Amino acid sequence: MNYQQVIEKTYTKVLAEKNLGSLANYIPELSKIDSKKFGVHISTTDNKEFYTGDSSEKFSIQSVVKVFSLIMAYRLLGRNTWDRVGVEPSGTAFNSLVQLEADKGKPRNPFINSGALVICDMLISNLQNPKQEFLNFINTVSHNSDIQFSQKIISSEKLVGFRNIALCNYIKSYGNIENSPEEVLDLYFTICSIEMSCQELSRASLFLANNGRTLATQEQILNSSQTKRINAIMQTCGFYDESGEFSFKVGLPGKSGVGGGIIAIHPSKYSIAVWSPKLNAKGNSYRGMKFLEQLTTQLQSSIF
Amino acid sequence: MNYQQVIEKTYTKVLAEKNLGSLANYIPELSKIDSKKFGVHISTTDNKEFYTGDSSEKFSIQSVVKVFSLIMAYRLLGRNTWDRVGVEPSGTAFNSLVQLEADKGKPRNPFINSGALVICDMLISNLQNPKQEFLNFINTVSHNSDIQFSQKIISSEKLVGFRNIALCNYIKSYGNIENSPEEVLDLYFTICSIEMSCQELSRASLFLANNGRTLATQEQILNSSQTKRINAIMQTCGFYDESGEFSFKVGLPGKSGVGGGIIAIHPSKYSIAVWSPKLNAKGNSYRGMKFLEQLTTQLQSSIF
Amino acid sequence: MNYQQVIEKTYTKVLAEKNLGSLANYIPELSKIDSKKFGVHISTTDNKEFYTGDSSEKFSIQSVVKVFSLIMAYRLLGRNTWDRVGVEPSGTAFNSLVQLEADKGKPRNPFINSGALVICDMLISNLQNPKQEFLNFINTVSHNSDIQFSQKIISSEKLVGFRNIALCNYIKSYGNIENSPEEVLDLYFTICSIEMSCQELSRASLFLANNGRTLATQEQILNSSQTKRINAIMQTCGFYDESGEFSFKVGLPGKSGVGGGIIAIHPSKYSIAVWSPKLNAKGNSYRGMKFLEQLTTQLQSSIF
Amino acid sequence: MNYQQVIEKTYTKVLAEKNLGSLANYIPELSKIDSKKFGVHISTTDNKEFYTGDSSEKFSIQSVVKVFSLIMAYRLLGRNTWDRVGVEPSGTAFNSLVQLEADKGKPRNPFINSGALVICDMLISNLQNPKQEFLNFINTVSHNSDIQFSQKIISSEKLVGFRNIALCNYIKSYGNIENSPEEVLDLYFTICSIEMSCQELSRASLFLANNGRTLATQEQILNSSQTKRINAIMQTCGFYDESGEFSFKVGLPGKSGVGGGIIAIHPSKYSIAVWSPKLNAKGNSYRGMKFLEQLTTQLQSSIF
Repeated sequence: MNYQQVIEKTYTKVLAEKNLGSLANYIPELSKIDSKKFGVHISTTDNKEFYTGDSSEKFSIQSVVKVFSLIMAYRLLGRNTWDRVGVEPSGTAFNSLVQLEADKGKPRNPFINSGALVICDMLISNLQNPKQEFLNFINTVSHNSDIQFSQKIISSEKLVGFRNIALCNYIKSYGNIENSPEEVLDLYFTICSIEMSCQELSRASLFLANNGRTLATQEQILNSSQTKRINAIMQTCGFYDESGEFSFKVGLPGKSGVGGGIIAIHPSKYSIAVWSPKLNAKGNSYRGMKFLEQLTTQLQSSIF
Repeated sequence: MNYQQVIEKTYTKVLAEKNLGSLANYIPELSKIDSKKFGVHISTTDNKEFYTGDSSEKFSIQSVVKVFSLIMAYRLLGRNTWDRVGVEPSGTAFNSLVQLEADKGKPRNPFINSGALVICDMLISNLQNPKQEFLNFINTVSHNSDIQFSQKIISSEKLVGFRNIALCNYIKSYGNIENSPEEVLDLYFTICSIEMSCQELSRASLFLANNGRTLATQEQILNSSQTKRINAIMQTCGFYDESGEFSFKVGLPGKSGVGGGIIAIHPSKYSIAVWSPKLNAKGNSYRGMKFLEQLTTQLQSSIF
Repeated sequence: MNYQQVIEKTYTKVLAEKNLGSLANYIPELSKIDSKKFGVHISTTDNKEFYTGDSSEKFSIQSVVKVFSLIMAYRLLGRNTWDRVGVEPSGTAFNSLVQLEADKGKPRNPFINSGALVICDMLISNLQNPKQEFLNFINTVSHNSDIQFSQKIISSEKLVGFRNIALCNYIKSYGNIENSPEEVLDLYFTICSIEMSCQELSRASLFLANNGRTLATQEQILNSSQTKRINAIMQTCGFYDESGEFSFKVGLPGKSGVGGGIIAIHPSKYSIAVWSPKLNAKGNSYRGMKFLEQLTTQLQSSIF
Repeated sequence: MNYQQVIEKTYTKVLAEKNLGSLANYIPELSKIDSKKFGVHISTTDNKEFYTGDSSEKFSIQSVVKVFSLIMAYRLLGRNTWDRVGVEPSGTAFNSLVQLEADKGKPRNPFINSGALVICDMLISNLQNPKQEFLNFINTVSHNSDIQFSQKIISSEKLVGFRNIALCNYIKSYGNIENSPEEVLDLYFTICSIEMSCQELSRASLFLANNGRTLATQEQILNSSQTKRINAIMQTCGFYDESGEFSFKVGLPGKSGVGGGIIAIHPSKYSIAVWSPKLNAKGNSYRGMKFLEQLTTQLQSSIF
């Protein structure tokens, strides 16, 4: 099966269909994006790359970054990570405080906002300069050196991030945040502001399809067992309360962000990044979901 | 890798460790089982079988049966199945009515009790003699002819099944049950009472690892895409609110029952059934979970 | 202040305004009522009566009956009543199961459906012939002898009462129903079917304004302290999740039913019954609420 | 009935019984109070005063202050107050965010923390110098001039007030806070820190028993109808999720605080303040509740 042909055919097909949904509008920076942007990039474990559309244009990856922050924390804390954050799907909307109340401040998983805030707290407690070390890590796994935070996005988020401020203080009230909420929120808003292209995202996550080892430098980011576990969490929790739907339709572990980006992993085969800014009602990229569903059907390449 | 050796080694290791948890005690029939029972059976897509322990002894498969009732409904109704039951993990305990209230009578997925009741309702609406046809189906996929319902279990369940009666009437009040609650509950209690051995369960579910086709008769039970979707639902929803944990630790789609049975599928490779009656706090087999976690670690054979 | 004048003036004023809301439509019997019916009857502790409109026409009192069933149980069990049902407002809609799950089967108060079911269970456990004794009690306190159950309403309710069946079985699953759910539901549907006029209702509840003693026969139904407690529960829980609103606007203890009836008590002064079948969004009589608000404003006679 | 005798007899009786419960311990200032403190003060509408115990010693009135902040907002905004905060009992613990999520940022009533924060926001939007004007108001209604905020308490609260910070930001995310969360929280922590004696509290709330008019200066603080409504809210919502219990046992509108203070109003008769610092499991003064229950039983003076 020729990946490039299938990508292009699926891309053309999805492009011909209606571009439904709407742009994230809670901060001006995200609502100003051209809603017709659409890019795809696949990196395979046998060192090939296939791409089409706006695949080299940077965008705000937002919650996709939670995969990388989780991995950094997991490298630092190992299985102790799970003492403070669970691995169960949340069953409710991504910013819900209800579950948190029921679970006394332990977020259900590291991909909902509350869980990602606890992960940021772990990074602050364990790193000298978490922001710089985070950038270093992203630049290392993506074989790049110009991935940056967006100060504009950070400022925008801080102006409207009342729900995240609420979440962080709420968890703090249960004792599951060690540092000051201000510091944790600052790191959270900062890493979510990172801008990457599909190319960079796909490359950066390829080690998750390669048993934890980067292809270019053969660096072991996670061991094989840890890699499987990160993939498992993406499978069950990567798409908020549409995780079951994504698993059902696409059949790959993945993670989405409100910037319209999605990464998905086919263990031992490839990593893929898709970007299209319009979001469905659950907050996931409308075309991104559609593209991946049709792609895995074409390739018959779900993990199931 | 020699499956038989790994099975036996893992079996011995788990057997040597403490047998924690407790028997299901809500009906006398289940609490009278010998808690030391422990069996395993693997069937591979290249037509081999490996087993150890009490693998040919029949037990009450309980909720494991929900995989088969779902498949029967899916064969009858196709994608219309999902109009009345979702594919999202529930995020709460298996018998919770809260989610059902929030979702106005549409169960989150077909593996929680509420979802399985709606599936039973579909079978009644679409089959002449649902109980007999269900037995026929199970006997077909397991290449067997003496799998039966247990009248004792049915009677016991009916005496204490107030929560299931509540669930069924509650869904009926939202209009998502077409037949009388009594009829639906009767079918539900009946199919949950079915008794099978690990050998029979493993054989019966092998087609899920074989793109939907039975190995012995080459009958196409589900098409390839449908098969992947059933596996995907097992992955995200098969273990109540321990589904994330199972996905995380075992990394295979699976389904458990309060009788202590678990099936798990490695697509394209094998189906496995494990049985050990003592349950952990979440209602899943304590030793079954442990055995599968160690087995997939040994075999390095998770789907991730 | 002349009660008769104020009643008539207020009646005329409310009658001139729009008759908003809609008839209870879950059973045909209730939806067939003439929506223009409107009656009022006041009985005072100095033995006077004032009335206007359709005050002597019988209607289905529905949940208003829960005051009388509670009183019967309270007479039998005294403070032990509160071991199985609380006295707190529910904060959620009248048929919600959520609270019941959080409180492990103990209803928040005796006026939500779940609480009234537990009260029925108490009556069955403590009376030889609960239905007849209930009728006797109602006929006694209302100085009447022809108050009856409506077989038509009972049959209608049973055909659609899935949510109440769910509630009763759910509470049974927590062990807070002693008798069979069928028996409890039968009594519940039966007493809710009772038909009374405003005149009868007002007379029947006058002892609650008279320290627990009937005016005609000077029979002590409840002692003074018990009477205050029943009134207190009506004040905080009598109108489902509109109890605060009723307390705020009307300022009297009271109880409503989906038949459009409302009773309210001014301790030491009077009992009043109003009937108008159209219900607001919370399930309380639209005109009944309006009439009582304007009446207590005119009379300056709230308890606050 | 002689109030002074009844107060003293009841005081002696409660003092002789065990002093159960525990001090509020979330801030050091509150946990350092002498747990044996116990004072009572009644002010009657015929201008008499009765008191015993530590009735003239100042303590931290905490949430009791919410009655006064509500009244200030109600005087400024009239019925528009209720557009942004409800009048229904909450049915859940005083700091719960669940209800707030269900109600999209509109607090159920002005006495739970979320509601009191919205009230503070109203004061900031409508007053030049809310802190000073609040002090002026309290000093006016209590005929006093030395009631002050406690800087120590304010500082302590700010160090641990993560849940209130969470609440305020959460409501802000729904748009129901107009000013900055910092400003709102500052006013909230400030007014909650106010220190008053039973004597001052009882005098300050006497107008609520006097149709809204102060006794000393005959100033109309609220009109008669508004006064009844404030009392009604206290009746249904004054004691968090023990409001029904208080209504049931004491039968008067009232409000408690975690400093161990309680005020209660007998419309047209008297206002009473009790103080005893040990709290029951629901956060209300153990001895205060007990004293008031026995007092109203002795006086036969509940509003029911």
